[in-house]
Amino acid sequence: MRRHSILIVVCDGMADRAARTRGFQTPLSVAKKPNMDALAETGSIGLMHPIGPGVNPGSDVAHFALLGYNPYECYTGRGGLEAVGAGFAVNPGDVAFRCNFATVDDKMIVKDRRAGRAPEGREELAKAINEMKMSAPNVSFEFAPTVEHRGVLILRGKSLSRRVSDTDPHIEGRAVQKAKPEDRSEESRRTADIMNEFTEKSYLVLKNHPINAKRVGMGLPPANAVLSRGAGTIPPIETLTTKYSISAAFIGVAPIVRGICRLAGMDLIDVEGATGGLDTNFVAKAKAAVRAMEKYDLVFLHIKAPDIASHNGDFEKKVWTIEKIDAALGEALKSVDLNTHYIVLTSDHATPVVVKDHSADPVPIMIAGPDFDASGATSFSERTAATGNLGALLAPNLMPILMNRLGKIEKFGS
Amino acid sequence: MRRHSILIVVCDGMADRAARTRGFQTPLSVAKKPNMDALAETGSIGLMHPIGPGVNPGSDVAHFALLGYNPYECYTGRGGLEAVGAGFAVNPGDVAFRCNFATVDDKMIVKDRRAGRAPEGREELAKAINEMKMSAPNVSFEFAPTVEHRGVLILRGKSLSRRVSDTDPHIEGRAVQKAKPEDRSEESRRTADIMNEFTEKSYLVLKNHPINAKRVGMGLPPANAVLSRGAGTIPPIETLTTKYSISAAFIGVAPIVRGICRLAGMDLIDVEGATGGLDTNFVAKAKAAVRAMEKYDLVFLHIKAPDIASHNGDFEKKVWTIEKIDAALGEALKSVDLNTHYIVLTSDHATPVVVKDHSADPVPIMIAGPDFDASGATSFSERTAATGNLGALLAPNLMPILMNRLGKIEKFGS
Repeated sequence: MRRHSILIVVCDGMADRAARTRGFQTPLSVAKKPNMDALAETGSIGLMHPIGPGVNPGSDVAHFALLGYNPYECYTGRGGLEAVGAGFAVNPGDVAFRCNFATVDDKMIVKDRRAGRAPEGREELAKAINEMKMSAPNVSFEFAPTVEHRGVLILRGKSLSRRVSDTDPHIEGRAVQKAKPEDRSEESRRTADIMNEFTEKSYLVLKNHPINAKRVGMGLPPANAVLSRGAGTIPPIETLTTKYSISAAFIGVAPIVRGICRLAGMDLIDVEGATGGLDTNFVAKAKAAVRAMEKYDLVFLHIKAPDIASHNGDFEKKVWTIEKIDAALGEALKSVDLNTHYIVLTSDHATPVVVKDHSADPVPIMIAGPDFDASGATSFSERTAATGNLGALLAPNLMPILMNRLGKIEKFGS
Repeated sequence: MRRHSILIVVCDGMADRAARTRGFQTPLSVAKKPNMDALAETGSIGLMHPIGPGVNPGSDVAHFALLGYNPYECYTGRGGLEAVGAGFAVNPGDVAFRCNFATVDDKMIVKDRRAGRAPEGREELAKAINEMKMSAPNVSFEFAPTVEHRGVLILRGKSLSRRVSDTDPHIEGRAVQKAKPEDRSEESRRTADIMNEFTEKSYLVLKNHPINAKRVGMGLPPANAVLSRGAGTIPPIETLTTKYSISAAFIGVAPIVRGICRLAGMDLIDVEGATGGLDTNFVAKAKAAVRAMEKYDLVFLHIKAPDIASHNGDFEKKVWTIEKIDAALGEALKSVDLNTHYIVLTSDHATPVVVKDHSADPVPIMIAGPDFDASGATSFSERTAATGNLGALLAPNLMPILMNRLGKIEKFGS
């Protein structure tokens, strides 16, 4: 194993909120998690605001912050991140969109935002779309299906803007929206025009496509429209390698986090059995992360499961995910020597079970390693972290704090 | 009562400073206040810097911060706030001043900054002033007495500026000052000229006014000059309703705080027996605040008494005010269910008894409610708050933190 490598374990949405009616307990305080508790005792613990007190972060923004980037400076929409995460090339100037195959009627009213979830023949439909000719000069596009009914659209060329609104109405029973410029620039107006032309032409191409004729014949909803949302460019960030001269790897499934990590210069490691769901192979992911510490200075392990249980409002299931993660860490970390290596355990943001969505609450963080002081805490929870020996941090502080221990921070002043 | 309403109790200047010679005790640590202590035990506590460490805030700036506004961005002088607080209409572009009726000699030397405190016939004197014709085109003014010797002057029109100095010399025995522009703009020069003309003309109008002839005949100081200070415009702020979609109300007497709250879109609730002094009806105010929680999402209760005792340097009286507030809260809060509602207890700033003025010290804050963790503290004081489970906050964080719990914070990112 490398002399000093760092494993950051991000349990998505694990942080929660103490409820008076539950005796102030949280999933983290209730869960049986002997391994996390032991790490907290000989490690440092504290509270971390993802962005700042009272700021409710999306997944994208929260991960920029965790990796040391200022989201107020670098966040340029979700589309580009998602496309990069799905493995597509997005270059500076390109504008990418998250897309859905959908079912619309002949008045363009959305009947099914997912065209029956996973329409067969997606590749053929995409091929037909990609053969369309657009009237705008100096612009090309790439449309590609990804998972189920989802896809990405990348506009390439000059004078494009991400400041255009969604064509996706986001609810069924409403018409496909006109893309509108969100500022007064010529680029935004032009991009909105292109999106409206794309939307109309793709409907014309799709509605008479043999695949859809077949679907209708079988009583299935036709995939006869492409809805777009979340226009984005790639963010203007330096890679971690450039910033800190480190090597870094990411293990996780969520496309948007993969996209951000790829843009941060991290290698993406795929793990057999990692699903990004409640059925993921926790142990396989944890073991793969520890193995990666042999090769990389920094390994980022992302586990989505607690967030899923939280969005479902399922306290017990959230406790279960934490216990699964704890057991997996217990098994995998046996071979990690804390006299030389660092383990960080935290969340990207809180997803309180009562809220069933992200919230602005701070998250507990634990850092154990050769030279972080022991907190002496008997457990790891929102409560112990609140008065912990790390104090209160902002997520963008984390990477500089860790890089300081690796001796990667240049002196300010002399 | 509404499903989730918030009561913020601001005890003006309650925070103090631990003195070694007093065994490190403060009025808050000495006071018998079982109700505040009980709230602190099952609520979260911490320290809050009104603006930032070492920044000594005025009342105006401190209250902007408490309501979630950045005073560095929105503070535009005291005059406009005070005029709005006194019930006058101040529109964008208007410049308002705090004024005193004063007594000057024929060399314009100030003999009595308050013209004997509460000169009789103020309304008639004001009428005479308001009939004056000013030479500047496109400017009108309104002068109105408020309480005792005080009044407000509002300049209305175009091309005015708040960057003009006071005509009030602030001490007696010195001449009425010329208003001077405080920057190089044409607007400031013009506004200074207007103020100098106003000051000269009002002296001419007042000195021969029958009311003053009568006062001199009775051996009273004539109210023969109007001193002005604190030029201000209304701040460029969004109301709380616009920012967070909440309804809000204010209970309190201090004109400047009333002005800020009115500008923040809060309803002002008057309470019988509320004086803004040491003789205020603590219980009536607390009960009115709890009643208002039935109608409003946010209720702001401001109690000036601790600040008054502090300015007087009276430790024992300050303890007394805290005990009076505690008893009033104990009585009023009986009907508030903390499983659904929030109570916040804090100060706008510290006013240490030894300083007899505002200071930059942080203030203790307590938040109790359905989903703030229990601190377990056995009392509420500067000392317990310093290591409390809320950590260290800045006052402008408070409103976002509370609005997060009400689900009023929009996600940043996606």
